[in-house]
Amino acid sequence: MATTKTGAPLDRGTLDTLLRRRLFYTPSFEMYGGVSGLYDYGPPGCALQQSIVDTWRKHFVLEEDMLEVDCTMLTPHEVLKTSGHVDKFADWMCKDPKSGEIFRADHLVEEVLEARLKGDKEARGEKVAVEEEDADKKKRKKKVKDIQVVKLTDEVRKEYEETLAKIDNYDGAELGELIIKHKITNPATGGALEPPVAFNLMFQTSIGPSSNLPGYLRPETAQGQFLTFNKLLEFNNLRMPFASASIGKSFRNEISPRSGLLRVREFLMAEIEHFVDPAEKKHPRFVEVADSVSLKFLPRNVQEQGQTTIVEKTIGEAVREGMVDNETLGYFLARIQLFLKEIGIDQNKVRFRQHMPNEMAHYATDCWDAELLTSYGWIECVGCADRSAYDLTVHSKKTGQSLIVREALEVPKVWEQWDIVVDKKWLGPRFKKDAKKVEEAIEKVPQEEREKMAATLKEGGKITVKVDGLGEVELDKVTVEKNQHTQNVREYTPNVIEPSFGIGRIFYSLIEHIYWTRPGSELRDVLSFPPRIAPTKILIVPLSSNKDFAPLVTALSHKIRRAGVSNRVDNSSTSIGKRYSRNDELGTPFGITIDFQTVKDGTVTLRERDGMKQIRASQEQVIEVVKGILEDNGTWEEALEKYGEFQGQELDE
Amino acid sequence: MATTKTGAPLDRGTLDTLLRRRLFYTPSFEMYGGVSGLYDYGPPGCALQQSIVDTWRKHFVLEEDMLEVDCTMLTPHEVLKTSGHVDKFADWMCKDPKSGEIFRADHLVEEVLEARLKGDKEARGEKVAVEEEDADKKKRKKKVKDIQVVKLTDEVRKEYEETLAKIDNYDGAELGELIIKHKITNPATGGALEPPVAFNLMFQTSIGPSSNLPGYLRPETAQGQFLTFNKLLEFNNLRMPFASASIGKSFRNEISPRSGLLRVREFLMAEIEHFVDPAEKKHPRFVEVADSVSLKFLPRNVQEQGQTTIVEKTIGEAVREGMVDNETLGYFLARIQLFLKEIGIDQNKVRFRQHMPNEMAHYATDCWDAELLTSYGWIECVGCADRSAYDLTVHSKKTGQSLIVREALEVPKVWEQWDIVVDKKWLGPRFKKDAKKVEEAIEKVPQEEREKMAATLKEGGKITVKVDGLGEVELDKVTVEKNQHTQNVREYTPNVIEPSFGIGRIFYSLIEHIYWTRPGSELRDVLSFPPRIAPTKILIVPLSSNKDFAPLVTALSHKIRRAGVSNRVDNSSTSIGKRYSRNDELGTPFGITIDFQTVKDGTVTLRERDGMKQIRASQEQVIEVVKGILEDNGTWEEALEKYGEFQGQELDE
Repeated sequence: MATTKTGAPLDRGTLDTLLRRRLFYTPSFEMYGGVSGLYDYGPPGCALQQSIVDTWRKHFVLEEDMLEVDCTMLTPHEVLKTSGHVDKFADWMCKDPKSGEIFRADHLVEEVLEARLKGDKEARGEKVAVEEEDADKKKRKKKVKDIQVVKLTDEVRKEYEETLAKIDNYDGAELGELIIKHKITNPATGGALEPPVAFNLMFQTSIGPSSNLPGYLRPETAQGQFLTFNKLLEFNNLRMPFASASIGKSFRNEISPRSGLLRVREFLMAEIEHFVDPAEKKHPRFVEVADSVSLKFLPRNVQEQGQTTIVEKTIGEAVREGMVDNETLGYFLARIQLFLKEIGIDQNKVRFRQHMPNEMAHYATDCWDAELLTSYGWIECVGCADRSAYDLTVHSKKTGQSLIVREALEVPKVWEQWDIVVDKKWLGPRFKKDAKKVEEAIEKVPQEEREKMAATLKEGGKITVKVDGLGEVELDKVTVEKNQHTQNVREYTPNVIEPSFGIGRIFYSLIEHIYWTRPGSELRDVLSFPPRIAPTKILIVPLSSNKDFAPLVTALSHKIRRAGVSNRVDNSSTSIGKRYSRNDELGTPFGITIDFQTVKDGTVTLRERDGMKQIRASQEQVIEVVKGILEDNGTWEEALEKYGEFQGQELDE
Repeated sequence: MATTKTGAPLDRGTLDTLLRRRLFYTPSFEMYGGVSGLYDYGPPGCALQQSIVDTWRKHFVLEEDMLEVDCTMLTPHEVLKTSGHVDKFADWMCKDPKSGEIFRADHLVEEVLEARLKGDKEARGEKVAVEEEDADKKKRKKKVKDIQVVKLTDEVRKEYEETLAKIDNYDGAELGELIIKHKITNPATGGALEPPVAFNLMFQTSIGPSSNLPGYLRPETAQGQFLTFNKLLEFNNLRMPFASASIGKSFRNEISPRSGLLRVREFLMAEIEHFVDPAEKKHPRFVEVADSVSLKFLPRNVQEQGQTTIVEKTIGEAVREGMVDNETLGYFLARIQLFLKEIGIDQNKVRFRQHMPNEMAHYATDCWDAELLTSYGWIECVGCADRSAYDLTVHSKKTGQSLIVREALEVPKVWEQWDIVVDKKWLGPRFKKDAKKVEEAIEKVPQEEREKMAATLKEGGKITVKVDGLGEVELDKVTVEKNQHTQNVREYTPNVIEPSFGIGRIFYSLIEHIYWTRPGSELRDVLSFPPRIAPTKILIVPLSSNKDFAPLVTALSHKIRRAGVSNRVDNSSTSIGKRYSRNDELGTPFGITIDFQTVKDGTVTLRERDGMKQIRASQEQVIEVVKGILEDNGTWEEALEKYGEFQGQELDE
């Protein structure tokens, strides 16, 4: 069950109303009826998003000297055809031709069979377990509303269970067969469904005035980074390993998005592509995290047993044991954890789940997700995939341009081998268009055979080679000799470790984690963002609309801004208590009140959001307290001790 | 003629090569042959863009408490249909059916006629003036390569000149007639052209799985802000005026983009929508700029005379004289100027040009562009338009939801008027479906007439009203009385002043303004960004690859980063002089060298990019000098004086 920061049950409806009322976000185009899966961020949402992005940039890009790039979202067809997205970035959908409704086929089959199994259990009088559900399942629940209490035969029951266990593995044709076999129809109307068709999840468009350059909105920022690899490598003075990074919008044309900010059609991503020598996935800074960072893992083998038991250990241990494949992957998992901690994510609501082989994206060879627990269940918020050399290889192959690293070997590699040298002037005219085929066949002759060939030649014999389509071909004008070879340069295609962050999902999960309700005569909601992450740092409130306060408010606001701290003034006519509680909802960590004492001696009160205690001090001192806390150079408790708690003001809180 | 920072002729080719080599930007998808109008930003470009955006956010959003929002780029058809973009955001294009080439019709006519006029001038032996050309003209030049020296009749010459003067005013049919009349063909092949067709400049796509929700990528961020108006007004405690702001990508499917970063299909915009009472366009902070900010204006009346003479005056004077319409518009022009100055734009290469009535966007009633002088001519980089109430009105009308401000009047408005009151219970049954029509007709009866009606009724007479389609209708069950009315609330649709910044254009113009070549044995290029704007602030170079330097380099880099200053290490094996000159090209304002002295006593040298002078001091002192300069709290000259110039090191510069 989802809980608030203080462990109370979380009422998502209430939180959602708060977030919309305070303009953290709002459905886009609401005046026009809205478009599902599209949301706008209002001022506090925008500032919060900016805080998260700034923190991300400092934590990753600046800290690790990553090469940040900003590539276009518009992407021509050919690039995404090569990357595999045109063919594989799709879901299967089927349509009810009568109602026009469209269903995602795998979700529909899953949900209908699950409903029938539940009905069966009820019919058998078995207990229906209430499991933890992931966001997708919860969402899909809506379609099958009524569980029919119908007993199934043991055979059918077993078949359903087996089908559900493999639900992620079916292609469109197989899903179509399941729909027919199990008589699955539109759950609402019972209407028959058309066979599943693939629906590509990319938004398509056309670039330029003639329609012969089809393009898409990128589904990830990664491709732009891969295509710039050679230039980035050069920019990095040809040194490996290195990482590029990108922060920008990506797009996914969901079939029927729900789940608020968690499943949207346009979203902000922050992606890192760490390029690494496949033979050497160590990381120089791994020692900094190995023993000090402990993670909660849900590895593949646990999931295979149908369990969700968490394995907690240091990242050093996890890599040593081989649960996490290598240091670089491990380093990033630890850094992800530290980042989430820094922005205020509840450390008891984070786990790292390893992907099952059948659920990985088409390009990945291994993948760990940082999942955050929310009222929608465990949500994938950061993916950390090993894309191996997949992307660089396919782009290189398609364009004929190499995307490789050439590394001077410190100790040149020296070895002996048998070489077959055929006179090209003989080979060409002799075999004409087949000459290349013959050369390739010669290339493939193993060393032992070559040694024998050399002996045959020495004895004056003839040698032959077997060529596809030509049979045994006799080689004339040929020598076979043992030579010494030296290699000074090693060439390789880098592997890519990709930590990929869904900023919107992190944004939403964070809000659930730091949300709580203050007990009291009237329940009041609070968003306890860490001060550094909070959309606004200081609220300035004049005690009343007394004319003397206005110039002091303006001057103080400027003073605070010059100190580099964001602030907002609330000089509306509502009571000071109401204004503070409005700002608790906005998550503003500090409030400064200007009152009659301020007019006399310039002092102000400073209120801390979570504890609601106040101090009274000069404006400079108060700014210093807040700056200190923002810069990790002091705490509120220290300030309370230094200045003493102030209790003079009457506030109707 | 375009010049560098030091006034020398600017060679755009050389600069462009530098920018690509140093990865400020690079054509997107170059491995796949590229897509015109799409560019990626590499690490220094990305950091520079970020600096400009950060400065913009501080200068406008934070300084003025603007409400920043982040709306989606995907926009449904209906919204952009209402805003007028579906119908009017288009260019006319015509196709050569033989070659498949597509031309922008107005540009083609303009360029062919201009070429003929030049040929005529040459034939007449007149001097062909080399004028300053704007970016578009320069670009178009490419199509008509050869000027045919052919004399025209005086009559034809006059006709061409008149056509060119009105070239922005023709619609598609008229452009088609001009093409036929003047026998305009494909300049390269002489091939005949098809009649012009409208080409909408928005990228179209389809939202969701069924294709019945067509959408576009937004052509501006503004629409999202307009649609959120009511919510923003409420967020602002219903206070007017206020401004929203948005930073994000917009899209424009150019017919054939050239001119590098100046005409692209995907671009970063920063837009402000300042909502203001149409009856009161004063601005409270106008006094802060009125006399202190002087601008170079190119007003409409000067342009009407075919001149480009600059009028320089304070913004206070310009508003007083009525050249600039109102204080709010004036305030923003001044703030734009200050922003451009802050990021390093050459103040002699800025002018504010007023739009001619026929060149304004369909929504604008007045518009001033901040234009920057570059090698492409004067480039529109910031538009400052008065969109009046256009957008709020059309969206409100379309959706039936009001987008208005209700303002409590300090002094209620009291007046007397004649009211006609008809018994609805009589009216409805009597006129049935026409009842509404009758009511509307009654509504329109003028006051004088009503007074007469009252008299007629008093005398026991009958009164009638003329209704469209029904003729004179007799009113029964009716009273006409003089009543006193009181209005406590005033309602109005705000006007919008919109400063809109093309970040990419500012980015490119800035680079041209601060680019120069250092004289010397070998010419070396320098980008003299102001330190605060520079992509990286400090370069750290170890004197050589001596093993003792490496730990010092790492420690210093961390120290500088902790001080919040971005830095890069160049420990490549090239000479220190080459490394410095590489970083001059990157525009890094400061360089720190770690040498043998550092190993002994921890001191380092600090080099300033533009003057190449160095000081020697402790690491803490050097960091303090740089931080001071970045925070406007000290200058390089002061540091030179304090620490003395250091000349010990041998650098092969």
